[in-house]
Amino acid sequence: MKFRIEKDTMGNVNVPADKLWGAQTERSRNNFKIGASASMPLEIVYGFAYLKKAAAYTNAELGVLDNNKRDLIEKVCDEILQGKHDDQFPLVIWQTGSGTQSNMNVNEVIANRAHQIAGKVIGEGDKTIQPNDDVNKSQSSNDTFPTGMHIAIYKKVVETTISGVIQLRNTLHKKSMAFNDVVKIGRTHLMDATPLTLGQEFSGYVSQLDHGIIALENTLPHLAELALGGTAVGTGLNTPNGYSELVAEYIAKFTGLPFVSAENKFEALAAHDALVETHGALKQLAVSLNKIANDIRMMASGPRSGIGEIIIPANEPGSSIMPGKVNPTQCEALTMVCAQVMGNDVAVTVGGTQGHYELNVFKPMMAANVLHSAQLIGDACVSFDEHCASGIEPNHDVIKQLLNNSLMLVTALNTKIGYYKAAEIANTAHKNGTTLKIEAINLGYVTAEEYDEWVKPEEMVGSLK
Amino acid sequence: MKFRIEKDTMGNVNVPADKLWGAQTERSRNNFKIGASASMPLEIVYGFAYLKKAAAYTNAELGVLDNNKRDLIEKVCDEILQGKHDDQFPLVIWQTGSGTQSNMNVNEVIANRAHQIAGKVIGEGDKTIQPNDDVNKSQSSNDTFPTGMHIAIYKKVVETTISGVIQLRNTLHKKSMAFNDVVKIGRTHLMDATPLTLGQEFSGYVSQLDHGIIALENTLPHLAELALGGTAVGTGLNTPNGYSELVAEYIAKFTGLPFVSAENKFEALAAHDALVETHGALKQLAVSLNKIANDIRMMASGPRSGIGEIIIPANEPGSSIMPGKVNPTQCEALTMVCAQVMGNDVAVTVGGTQGHYELNVFKPMMAANVLHSAQLIGDACVSFDEHCASGIEPNHDVIKQLLNNSLMLVTALNTKIGYYKAAEIANTAHKNGTTLKIEAINLGYVTAEEYDEWVKPEEMVGSLK
Amino acid sequence: MKFRIEKDTMGNVNVPADKLWGAQTERSRNNFKIGASASMPLEIVYGFAYLKKAAAYTNAELGVLDNNKRDLIEKVCDEILQGKHDDQFPLVIWQTGSGTQSNMNVNEVIANRAHQIAGKVIGEGDKTIQPNDDVNKSQSSNDTFPTGMHIAIYKKVVETTISGVIQLRNTLHKKSMAFNDVVKIGRTHLMDATPLTLGQEFSGYVSQLDHGIIALENTLPHLAELALGGTAVGTGLNTPNGYSELVAEYIAKFTGLPFVSAENKFEALAAHDALVETHGALKQLAVSLNKIANDIRMMASGPRSGIGEIIIPANEPGSSIMPGKVNPTQCEALTMVCAQVMGNDVAVTVGGTQGHYELNVFKPMMAANVLHSAQLIGDACVSFDEHCASGIEPNHDVIKQLLNNSLMLVTALNTKIGYYKAAEIANTAHKNGTTLKIEAINLGYVTAEEYDEWVKPEEMVGSLK
Amino acid sequence: MKFRIEKDTMGNVNVPADKLWGAQTERSRNNFKIGASASMPLEIVYGFAYLKKAAAYTNAELGVLDNNKRDLIEKVCDEILQGKHDDQFPLVIWQTGSGTQSNMNVNEVIANRAHQIAGKVIGEGDKTIQPNDDVNKSQSSNDTFPTGMHIAIYKKVVETTISGVIQLRNTLHKKSMAFNDVVKIGRTHLMDATPLTLGQEFSGYVSQLDHGIIALENTLPHLAELALGGTAVGTGLNTPNGYSELVAEYIAKFTGLPFVSAENKFEALAAHDALVETHGALKQLAVSLNKIANDIRMMASGPRSGIGEIIIPANEPGSSIMPGKVNPTQCEALTMVCAQVMGNDVAVTVGGTQGHYELNVFKPMMAANVLHSAQLIGDACVSFDEHCASGIEPNHDVIKQLLNNSLMLVTALNTKIGYYKAAEIANTAHKNGTTLKIEAINLGYVTAEEYDEWVKPEEMVGSLK
Repeated sequence: MKFRIEKDTMGNVNVPADKLWGAQTERSRNNFKIGASASMPLEIVYGFAYLKKAAAYTNAELGVLDNNKRDLIEKVCDEILQGKHDDQFPLVIWQTGSGTQSNMNVNEVIANRAHQIAGKVIGEGDKTIQPNDDVNKSQSSNDTFPTGMHIAIYKKVVETTISGVIQLRNTLHKKSMAFNDVVKIGRTHLMDATPLTLGQEFSGYVSQLDHGIIALENTLPHLAELALGGTAVGTGLNTPNGYSELVAEYIAKFTGLPFVSAENKFEALAAHDALVETHGALKQLAVSLNKIANDIRMMASGPRSGIGEIIIPANEPGSSIMPGKVNPTQCEALTMVCAQVMGNDVAVTVGGTQGHYELNVFKPMMAANVLHSAQLIGDACVSFDEHCASGIEPNHDVIKQLLNNSLMLVTALNTKIGYYKAAEIANTAHKNGTTLKIEAINLGYVTAEEYDEWVKPEEMVGSLK
Repeated sequence: MKFRIEKDTMGNVNVPADKLWGAQTERSRNNFKIGASASMPLEIVYGFAYLKKAAAYTNAELGVLDNNKRDLIEKVCDEILQGKHDDQFPLVIWQTGSGTQSNMNVNEVIANRAHQIAGKVIGEGDKTIQPNDDVNKSQSSNDTFPTGMHIAIYKKVVETTISGVIQLRNTLHKKSMAFNDVVKIGRTHLMDATPLTLGQEFSGYVSQLDHGIIALENTLPHLAELALGGTAVGTGLNTPNGYSELVAEYIAKFTGLPFVSAENKFEALAAHDALVETHGALKQLAVSLNKIANDIRMMASGPRSGIGEIIIPANEPGSSIMPGKVNPTQCEALTMVCAQVMGNDVAVTVGGTQGHYELNVFKPMMAANVLHSAQLIGDACVSFDEHCASGIEPNHDVIKQLLNNSLMLVTALNTKIGYYKAAEIANTAHKNGTTLKIEAINLGYVTAEEYDEWVKPEEMVGSLK
Repeated sequence: MKFRIEKDTMGNVNVPADKLWGAQTERSRNNFKIGASASMPLEIVYGFAYLKKAAAYTNAELGVLDNNKRDLIEKVCDEILQGKHDDQFPLVIWQTGSGTQSNMNVNEVIANRAHQIAGKVIGEGDKTIQPNDDVNKSQSSNDTFPTGMHIAIYKKVVETTISGVIQLRNTLHKKSMAFNDVVKIGRTHLMDATPLTLGQEFSGYVSQLDHGIIALENTLPHLAELALGGTAVGTGLNTPNGYSELVAEYIAKFTGLPFVSAENKFEALAAHDALVETHGALKQLAVSLNKIANDIRMMASGPRSGIGEIIIPANEPGSSIMPGKVNPTQCEALTMVCAQVMGNDVAVTVGGTQGHYELNVFKPMMAANVLHSAQLIGDACVSFDEHCASGIEPNHDVIKQLLNNSLMLVTALNTKIGYYKAAEIANTAHKNGTTLKIEAINLGYVTAEEYDEWVKPEEMVGSLK
Repeated sequence: MKFRIEKDTMGNVNVPADKLWGAQTERSRNNFKIGASASMPLEIVYGFAYLKKAAAYTNAELGVLDNNKRDLIEKVCDEILQGKHDDQFPLVIWQTGSGTQSNMNVNEVIANRAHQIAGKVIGEGDKTIQPNDDVNKSQSSNDTFPTGMHIAIYKKVVETTISGVIQLRNTLHKKSMAFNDVVKIGRTHLMDATPLTLGQEFSGYVSQLDHGIIALENTLPHLAELALGGTAVGTGLNTPNGYSELVAEYIAKFTGLPFVSAENKFEALAAHDALVETHGALKQLAVSLNKIANDIRMMASGPRSGIGEIIIPANEPGSSIMPGKVNPTQCEALTMVCAQVMGNDVAVTVGGTQGHYELNVFKPMMAANVLHSAQLIGDACVSFDEHCASGIEPNHDVIKQLLNNSLMLVTALNTKIGYYKAAEIANTAHKNGTTLKIEAINLGYVTAEEYDEWVKPEEMVGSLK
């Protein structure tokens, strides 16, 4: 392999000649061989591209960067955002906890690529723009990395998570409407209970997701706060007047998202409670989705020895040994995602507790976990929707049979003959393996006519909305 | 011990003669000898007292309960709320996951105590009011228990948690103002960094808690939704028209809190995402408090071989063997609370995922953990405030000495001579054990006059608010 | 209330006159009003009683304590172990993280009670023995508290957890034997699969618990290591020669458990990985128990619209509104316990990470959580065993019916006609709602005789042990 | 793109013509677009390669597979293990929870590649060997996937985790020896305490890791148990006599690791407590490493305003804005890894609880998390060792200065003049900002000679090993 020499304040470093990165990236690449390579999420790199461009505009507008340099920086940032340099960001999550070398990776790539755009050859002559003094002007890793991660996560939450959850929610809502009059047995403690409609069951799922989306949206204002302008420790040292607000405006403009400058930059560098908050809401969604997926696979269980009240799409052969088997695989993928999100929540939480003084140095780990969860939930909801939820159909025969067999219809008699006599009827029918009606009459508590008038499953499900 | 016979639908049970509870309570007491006795939080019992009274009023107003019975129920509920029957609720958290026997415990105590109030002797004659048919009228365990826990948790969060956090937040805010001009060295990665003021550091803590309080308050609307009126499976079977809304109004009136009837009762029984949501915010506060407490104990460390920038109150002898030792014990209690809350969050989360069909049967465990965390955070904030935060003072001598020694003041030269030359100055001073000024002049990058003009710590901390 | 004056190195403190504790206990009581009072587990107090007695014996034997003092200390320790002073330990978990004041609480109670035993009046005259110089001789909170917690936890694990798990394991083993020839349908992905016996299913549970007990026992050697003799920072300052080993021997003798002196005292004070390790095994048991309890409640679900393959004891009326309902309440209590243990694991883990320099100051929180989990698992296993597992019976009719209906018996044909044709048979029978045999013959793949010979559920379950 | 048609029991599927996989892989690829592509760890694929080869050998030896087929299977498995087909396994973790399609992915690749090796063209003519009937003979996804994951994890733990931890442990041990006589101040509660040596501090770290390695090794026997031979539900349906034991022997032979056939196959399919157990030990190591890394960064903090007792290597410029800054970046990477492992533990735990009946369907998620943690810990230990631990040096000047300043040396006087007088000396020196000696003499408790004789830091550190 060919190398060129790049240097930083610690000296010279050999860098692969065909790469745009510089000395600090190469140091980090060599010093942190932990886990899969290039694990730093590209979404964060893109977040950096937005902010570097916004910083260049702001610096130029406030008179501390000339317009030529601004334009060069912008050009490279746009290339990065178009995905043209995805292979130039080789660093891992498990580096310095401030993400300094990932900031420098972006600075170095921008500076070297700008040198090319300016018609020069990388490694030859003075750099057209300097990674630290120009690209990183009015910035520190300590405010850029949290800014980059807020941009990345906000976009992911809005574009992938919320959109995916809403897609599934809408399908469940449609199903709830469609199943509005499918009266079925209810189950509490997994045991037979009074009836409800399948539509009512699904309406509970919709309500869970509606609350979950609200909870997630409630976290967005904190996430919209950007650290940029705090520089090294939050004081904004080495930034021109008005910088913080203006750079946030540019980021808002470039991303189309309502970012603002964090009112308190000390919090914004030293604590990442905003990520803890957002991930808390992702975890809540995982809790809801887990419940929903569990219910669906239990109701779809069978085909002959399970519950079998609903039918879900058969997407693939279910077994390498049992012919003809079909499994609730989308439920499985979704609940595995939920378990992962629950785990990620602890990682984010632990990272969040460990800010010290002016800086939290668990940034890359925290950001990567929030992005991971946000992506998984969004994707899994879409997958679950398209390959399972949208194809759910009631198995009317089974539903009717289970409903009519149920002993819990006796509850309708509570208000007529009291809880104790009703219990006696149910217990007797259970013991004798007979029906409620037979025992109700035999015990002399009701007449056949009364029974038929009082025990009507379809009238036990309340007023349907 | 003397016993009387109580009965339920399964038969007769011996109950201690001096106790107000009945058959089902006694069954549960015998069937669940798990952990400490009477672990079901009294706050939930009180939540039940509110709702039983409200249900009685609603039932009476809607014509399904006579006013005499309503009045008897109200009287006992008021006695319970006055703490007169705290020893009548012997059950544990680790019972049925619907809390059925705790609901029955309340029903039985109310019925038996009402019998006494009506001038009768418990165990003699027909019960004046029936536990199931009267006290539990228009109710099920499945909607009362979640209602009781929402009432209990909402009250606890508002009265203990938020109030405690605000007390601490206000003290930290006062300190932030008072320390506004105490310039000190900043630290990132635990390493010396550019200066800021002690007030700025504390302002970050205030901002964390402000965001945490907002996050917690954001969860209250979900918590304000009451399941009552859903009865067994959410359909509202055996409730009179208008019951749900009216009973929620009565609960709101009796508690003075903005409770409403849950729009979707199926969610309200089958999922407790509201608890997951609220605990998520409690966990976020734990994350914030952990950061704050850690900072304070590190800054107070010493007295001679630590950081020593602040002085915290000495509340107790710190060691049974090392004379004269004083420790940051309030920080320790607070961070232990934070660790507990992080653990409780997982318990609540796991419980939340496991609702099945129409009911989540992890209710008592979930509720107990949320109450536990809410209490601990509130109490610990008050304790930390009164015995530590309010007494924090800067150690001006140490602060000044550390500030003036710092090599990171060199950052002020970046914009004058560039990042690379500034780094050379700092590295040389570090190597030689000298000062920045000496090396800056020796290297010929600045004059003494320039140095003094450009490197002013008090001008490196930004504009103070 | 009457008070007497007690003093420590910080001055005088008013203490309730009828209490045995002294100044430092009272300071802690007032400074830490967090959560329920007296939450410090009594088991830890008893652990202290063992070690204080052992220390007195060791000090006397090594010539640094006179025998009179030793005897006085022993007498009080024995009283404490007999439960005579349970109300003299009012402190909470949420105090200093070294448990210093709980150590002093024990020292003070022993000193004051010894004064009484010596015929004096508390608060009058010089103390017969000194809390620090005599009772705490050759000790520090930093080595006593971890010693006390190791003693408490080791005892709890052996006496409550392991014993409880084994009780349940033995019942499940008996059931496994008893159900050895009950052939039933298997289920994978909740879907019908090839048959096995109910005994085989239960043997899996037994195997889980056997592995879990081994895992828990594997952690005992680490837990058997005692910190005592390390004193303040692990160096053993102020202890006589031979102290560490001898005091561990005395503790082993007094408790009847194989305690040894920790080889490395620096670890023993600064890290509590032994607690993390033990709780990890408790969590593993929780995982196993959760699986077992879930299976049992699913198999017992019904009575008419669930799986219904087994019958579990009916212990209490299941519903306050649905008459005649019986629920798997022991499964619910047990799985709630499992969720709690999973949460506690995170609390213990977080606490374990945060030792700093020579001391981990999350001791009381960590110890309380390990004790809590150990108690809950042990108790819940016994409760589950006595009120559920021991009464489990197969529902032979249901089992037979579900087995014979199953389409997955087709797997027996794989080795005869290949996976693809077998799948075609199963799919056709599923589509037509018919039996495997009918479709197998219709499709011409097997004759009736071949089918009967090849498809025998009882031969599909392998060799039974 | 060009496609060929592959078929399975559900019909035809278009597969990219240049790929070796078949119909079921392609179905899964299309049905599960969740997260990054090809996220199923290659280690598991390699685990499958071992077991497929072993199964072929066993089947051949037991007379159910001809030797030609065995040899073809072996050839492809060897190619897979040489990394020649890494791009043929495109599936994700978030698929069916049994990993069925990953099993089929391996079966299909082996069958198609065997067809090539046999001189045929994929997609033309009957397959030389069948994915289900030959490659998967005597197997099910339900026993192969857990076998593959046990092989993958066992190898990773032994080759990466334990080896990495031992490398770091050995360095810390060397440092402990080298620093054996560097007497320094101890710190408890972050506050000055009695002295110890730097070597003693490091010996605590060594002891933690020694215990951690033992704990991890304790889990290996459970992990060595292989599910293979259980087939669909654990009964071993469709396997020849002696298959389970023989196939485990072959796997042991091919991998060189002590794998055995699981005694109870029902547990081995339905529960993955072995993974929970192993990950529990990984988590314990994370706890230990977190403590060690925290200590080191605190002791290395500075350079001028921190503790500064040790010097760690400077590996990269620490700041993009603060020139000359060096940070404890390896500590940060390591502690981020620890937080991730703590999170992964919850994911694994939650997955472990959710086995249902005969199968746990959280397999891919659980396996991926255990592999992730095992890799991260191993890699991070090596990185931390090479770039930090091995270069740690004491800063003797600072250590000496802090030691001599300490007030806690007073503890040496406890046994001479009692705890109370010693405390008075320390408190007075603290208040007056003087030395212990001055105040000890002023207070008249000791003479100068006595002080010098009794207070010798180097004699307060115990006997060094």
